[in-house]
Amino acid sequence: MTTGRAFTVEPWCLRELSLDLDRIAQSESVFALSNGHIGLRANLDEGEPHGLPGTYLNGVFELRPLPYAEAGYGYPESGQTVINVTNGKLIRLMVDDEPFDLRYGTLRAHERNLDFRDGVLRRDVTWTSPAGRTVQVTSTRLVSFTQRAIAAICYEVEPVDGPARVVLQSELVANEQLPEQSGDPRAAAVLEAPLRAEHNGVSGERGAILIHQTARSGLRVAAGMDHRITVPEEVNLHVATESFDDLARTTIATVLRPGQKLRLVKFLAYGWSSYRSVPAVRDQVAAALSAARFTGWNGLLAEQRKYLDEFWQGASVEVDGDTEIEQAIRFALFHVLQASARAEQRAIPAKGLTGPGYDGHSFWDTEIFVLPVLTYSVPQAVEQALRWRHNTLPMARDRAQQLGLAGAVFPWRTIRGEECSGYWPAGTAAFHLGAGIAHAVVRYVQATDDRDFEREVGLELLVETARMWRSLGHHDTHGQFRIDGVTGPDEYSAISDNNVYTNLMARRNLIAAADVAERYPAQANELSVNVEEMASWRDAAKAMTIPYDETLGVHPQSEGFTSHEHWDFAATGSRYPLMLNFPYFDIYRKQVVKQADLVLAMQTCGEAFTPEQKARNFAYYEPITVRDSSLSACSQAVIAAECGHLDLALDYLAEAALTDLDDLHANTKDGLHMASLGGACLALVAGFGGLRDSEEGLAFAPRLPRGLSRVAFRMLIRGHHLRVEVTGETATYSLTDGPAIPISHHGEQMMLAPGDPVTRSIPPAPNWPAPLQPPGRAPRRREP
Amino acid sequence: MTTGRAFTVEPWCLRELSLDLDRIAQSESVFALSNGHIGLRANLDEGEPHGLPGTYLNGVFELRPLPYAEAGYGYPESGQTVINVTNGKLIRLMVDDEPFDLRYGTLRAHERNLDFRDGVLRRDVTWTSPAGRTVQVTSTRLVSFTQRAIAAICYEVEPVDGPARVVLQSELVANEQLPEQSGDPRAAAVLEAPLRAEHNGVSGERGAILIHQTARSGLRVAAGMDHRITVPEEVNLHVATESFDDLARTTIATVLRPGQKLRLVKFLAYGWSSYRSVPAVRDQVAAALSAARFTGWNGLLAEQRKYLDEFWQGASVEVDGDTEIEQAIRFALFHVLQASARAEQRAIPAKGLTGPGYDGHSFWDTEIFVLPVLTYSVPQAVEQALRWRHNTLPMARDRAQQLGLAGAVFPWRTIRGEECSGYWPAGTAAFHLGAGIAHAVVRYVQATDDRDFEREVGLELLVETARMWRSLGHHDTHGQFRIDGVTGPDEYSAISDNNVYTNLMARRNLIAAADVAERYPAQANELSVNVEEMASWRDAAKAMTIPYDETLGVHPQSEGFTSHEHWDFAATGSRYPLMLNFPYFDIYRKQVVKQADLVLAMQTCGEAFTPEQKARNFAYYEPITVRDSSLSACSQAVIAAECGHLDLALDYLAEAALTDLDDLHANTKDGLHMASLGGACLALVAGFGGLRDSEEGLAFAPRLPRGLSRVAFRMLIRGHHLRVEVTGETATYSLTDGPAIPISHHGEQMMLAPGDPVTRSIPPAPNWPAPLQPPGRAPRRREP
Repeated sequence: MTTGRAFTVEPWCLRELSLDLDRIAQSESVFALSNGHIGLRANLDEGEPHGLPGTYLNGVFELRPLPYAEAGYGYPESGQTVINVTNGKLIRLMVDDEPFDLRYGTLRAHERNLDFRDGVLRRDVTWTSPAGRTVQVTSTRLVSFTQRAIAAICYEVEPVDGPARVVLQSELVANEQLPEQSGDPRAAAVLEAPLRAEHNGVSGERGAILIHQTARSGLRVAAGMDHRITVPEEVNLHVATESFDDLARTTIATVLRPGQKLRLVKFLAYGWSSYRSVPAVRDQVAAALSAARFTGWNGLLAEQRKYLDEFWQGASVEVDGDTEIEQAIRFALFHVLQASARAEQRAIPAKGLTGPGYDGHSFWDTEIFVLPVLTYSVPQAVEQALRWRHNTLPMARDRAQQLGLAGAVFPWRTIRGEECSGYWPAGTAAFHLGAGIAHAVVRYVQATDDRDFEREVGLELLVETARMWRSLGHHDTHGQFRIDGVTGPDEYSAISDNNVYTNLMARRNLIAAADVAERYPAQANELSVNVEEMASWRDAAKAMTIPYDETLGVHPQSEGFTSHEHWDFAATGSRYPLMLNFPYFDIYRKQVVKQADLVLAMQTCGEAFTPEQKARNFAYYEPITVRDSSLSACSQAVIAAECGHLDLALDYLAEAALTDLDDLHANTKDGLHMASLGGACLALVAGFGGLRDSEEGLAFAPRLPRGLSRVAFRMLIRGHHLRVEVTGETATYSLTDGPAIPISHHGEQMMLAPGDPVTRSIPPAPNWPAPLQPPGRAPRRREP
Repeated sequence: MTTGRAFTVEPWCLRELSLDLDRIAQSESVFALSNGHIGLRANLDEGEPHGLPGTYLNGVFELRPLPYAEAGYGYPESGQTVINVTNGKLIRLMVDDEPFDLRYGTLRAHERNLDFRDGVLRRDVTWTSPAGRTVQVTSTRLVSFTQRAIAAICYEVEPVDGPARVVLQSELVANEQLPEQSGDPRAAAVLEAPLRAEHNGVSGERGAILIHQTARSGLRVAAGMDHRITVPEEVNLHVATESFDDLARTTIATVLRPGQKLRLVKFLAYGWSSYRSVPAVRDQVAAALSAARFTGWNGLLAEQRKYLDEFWQGASVEVDGDTEIEQAIRFALFHVLQASARAEQRAIPAKGLTGPGYDGHSFWDTEIFVLPVLTYSVPQAVEQALRWRHNTLPMARDRAQQLGLAGAVFPWRTIRGEECSGYWPAGTAAFHLGAGIAHAVVRYVQATDDRDFEREVGLELLVETARMWRSLGHHDTHGQFRIDGVTGPDEYSAISDNNVYTNLMARRNLIAAADVAERYPAQANELSVNVEEMASWRDAAKAMTIPYDETLGVHPQSEGFTSHEHWDFAATGSRYPLMLNFPYFDIYRKQVVKQADLVLAMQTCGEAFTPEQKARNFAYYEPITVRDSSLSACSQAVIAAECGHLDLALDYLAEAALTDLDDLHANTKDGLHMASLGGACLALVAGFGGLRDSEEGLAFAPRLPRGLSRVAFRMLIRGHHLRVEVTGETATYSLTDGPAIPISHHGEQMMLAPGDPVTRSIPPAPNWPAPLQPPGRAPRRREP
């Protein structure tokens, strides 16, 4: 493995200046393009060399059996796995007698550049063939934010040092051969040849369409392409298009001299359906291609830029003093946008559409780490993501019934909505997921005041999750409400009683459901909610058990946790992640934490803790938290900042933000860690901005580490921009427009009116002793 | 399913008077013959009709992959499954032109009879062929207790109503076609054609030998047969033997008239090895056949009777007032003997060698429910069973190391010694198994005074299990020793802290290891035991956490158990067993008990509870114990008797004893429930006899229910017979021979000398209110 930084540090783009074949799969992930509907890994235009070819459509999956050594009631019988659909990115190039393949000949220059404002991936290559002919190739690739079904590539080739016979083959290829994946359980199961051919034919001006169906899940996938070809007038071309079951190909043959450039614009369209017929999806794709051709390449570029200009205006982030962090946060925001922008009532997967990791599943972390970012930048994407959850309510109700519960139990991992977890102690038992969805509903409505959504979608999500909690827990003989035998966020504990995070989030869920049902009595009545039920939610919330260890003066993350044996870090050496080196039985029963759990509770439900408790809890959990999950550093950053450990907070923020750019978990090849990227943005805004958005309103408690001289960010609040600018000494709040809003600064309440910025000084940070991390597990220190 | 009693009630045999094809698989199990090395299901001699053909050799298994939907560190990759080896029971009969098959023609009479004193299965059949010819067939089958490799069948056929052309085909058949098994996870996985042919050939006088090897486990299996044929002098015979890969066949053709009987004695021999060559196992089987021929059929019968006479002298049980119970207890003792008599350093499987249930695996219940019975009746079988555990120490040490523990971790389920559990929360996490083995060692040595065994085998088993406990638990901040995150006997809870049964058994294990190490300092030193380690065992034992719920005045079976929600029995209806109708997550976190756990703790470690605690605990656990396991009724019987609920104890005893005879779990077809059968004997001796055999010596507290007028039983103590006879008013203890031994009667200590019986009156029973069972789950009331 090559070491050292792979990318240049620049504020508005990600750039590589050389091609490292050992890291090619990582680069395919970080340079991936997506609009939330279509995802294209950054495979080279010519197809090879590759790490892992990948073209994904949100929601397109194949079923695979889930096997069990010992079966059990309620275990899912089949899983859903994202599949590599028809690859339309391919443009093969032949120069004289040589296929353009960077593994042969001499690569004289290589640059790729993902531009966060243009929303395109640019590539410049100068290559000398084994026979000695040098050509220059540039390509620009986009997946359109504005035309959901469309991707496009502008591919240009020109000989440098003499005439060359050039053949381009622009293709659609189905059922690509994929390399074998590792045995790591987190890497996706690869399914061979999942697509069955249904239709192929030429289409449009110089294009073709292929239609396939998945064998078991029965999804129909259509991929189409069309082309615009430009050469100097004096150049002759031969162009032909042919199609077969798993291949469509437009071939362009010509001879070019230096100064003569062949330019191919390839329009790609994708569509899929579980219901619509072959002619219907065929025509849908043909129509999308027609619209794209009508818009033209320059039109698509312009739309893309405009879309992103608006996005960046709402999501502006400036970080003075650390350009690498600034770049990484913008990279993170860009990919979070790509994963969600046009997902439109489909899930936002843990890897977005950048790779097949985690089987393409969506988990609880979307609501907890991704939606908070989108809520204040692309709120319509949050609405869509929650509408997807709402659409899956029938499945979630069935699952609840199967589990003997009321209301709805959402799946731990899924693509379409069915539970796909094959290990229930770290799957189904993690009921906190339901509260995360409820929390996302409340946050979205607070930020947008979208009452239609609240009434039509939010209410039912809140009611059905509250019902689940009420039936999952029970009042004990002392009247306390207990939630036993569940798994919290930390996957190094399982099936424990009264997990603090779970119980606090459930409490909030129960109260929010009662509040919203009270607000919409007619709609609540339609859901059979009555006053008795609402009262039982409030009773349960009021009596919620929150365990506390009086001896140690800390919260056990679950009942009994602080009595357990401490993990033997001295004997662990470098055997991380623990789950691949030690049995679950050993991990579960000891005090060792994979990822923020009690610390996450302090982030999401901070009102339940005093500042002293937060500091003591943080000091207790830091030395036992190993961060084998990418969902930890960001929350540790937030609480470290709140407790005044500002340099440590910056270290954690950097770890979260660089998870994929530095490939910290050695699995970026399988796709980006979307929640960690979202979490990095939260680490900045909730950590150094001190943002808390509980029911009590927007609160800020900004404070910067030594390494940052200024941080500024914007948030969309009810359609208007709130800007926060923080320096070492002061924070300035300003509002663009709209009605005044109440905010607080380090506890001081104020009304913020548009056009009337407020500046306040920042009080000194609390001064707690620096916490320790497990040996060898401290985050990399960020040089100030 | 047919209802009603299938068998006649007789004190010394099990008899059926008709053939019920719906119950044929159950009858194959209950009439099965075994000596602990060879097991023959009671398939009809002609092979068909059958429920499930079964011929087993203890220790012969095939490997099968264990699949996981989500893999984990330390999960076993392959399991071991008992296989159906070469079937030598087959004797096919052709009458004129009709194969003798009871599904055709008319079955005029059918009787089978398993004689507990002769140790043979007798069969008498009168059948009229579809063509109208009537024949009488009798067969007698035995698996020899005295010649371990030998089984034999005496098969006689005679026409009744006219001359008949008769052809007998006596066969060895490998890779029999097996019917598909149900999807119940508890039924064994069936492997198709597991045997690869290595050798076949004729052998002996009129016999043949087949040798096969299992494909993956590499075990070589040899089966041989030889024959003695007797007919009246005037009858002519044609006899021929041939052999093929998977078939050897001796054919006898003749014509018989009424009064002329053809008698075939078939000697069968089996041998297997993982090391020995084809010629070696061939000759081993041939030698066993020669010895059996030399002994002859009558000699084998006589040896069998003599062996059983000695057994019954030591294990005599008399029950006046309930012959069905007397029969069932003798049936149980007979099958426990069959499962273990000649197992000789192989496991005693949960089903013995009577069927493929549980994959032929051995579990913790052998030590807890079967060995206590054998300890006082066939102690040499206990020695052999514990020597098997001792032989597997290298595997158990490897497993401990893999799990990060010291000492030895024995497998939850296995045939050879490797862990084969594919669901660790109810497998590996059930560490109490180790203490059960230690307990069996201590009990065996107390009963036999076998100091060679204690020094050579027992010490190391105790030391290695104590080491495991010491490393599994830890001292908390208050100095208490905790054992967290383990699973107790009750499989409806898992991964909990401080399970009372586990902790009490571990405490006893730690103390016993220290005591025995102190007794054999040189040998302990060879195992690197030093005084520090012994002290640390005693420290841990002394500080062992035993949770107690002060509010309710009962012991929670594990920490927190009594705070959990109660199971909703009203909503359960008839959906039992719960594990096939509800998810584990729901079952685990509620107060519902599959099988005696805290109640078992009160049985095995009664000294840790006051009589009042026992009564309160029993009253608490009875209403939440559903007995979805066959390992529960027997322990409930013992504690019910101790608490004075004598009629309830009889109900539970009957349930345990009739588990297979009445097919109470509807799976006797897969084999007998050996531990329930052993448990039924314990229910009698420890329940109504009140036997406790802790470190403090032998204690009795006999007391009979109204339904029994007299119970008498014998126990082997240090080679001598102790007889206990109990009536409603008195108990009489007598000793045949040897030195006087200390016993107690209802707390009164006494020395019992040979030839000097002691009679004591029985104090009145305590008078606690009758406990309740879950709705619909009370045991069947035994009519007095």
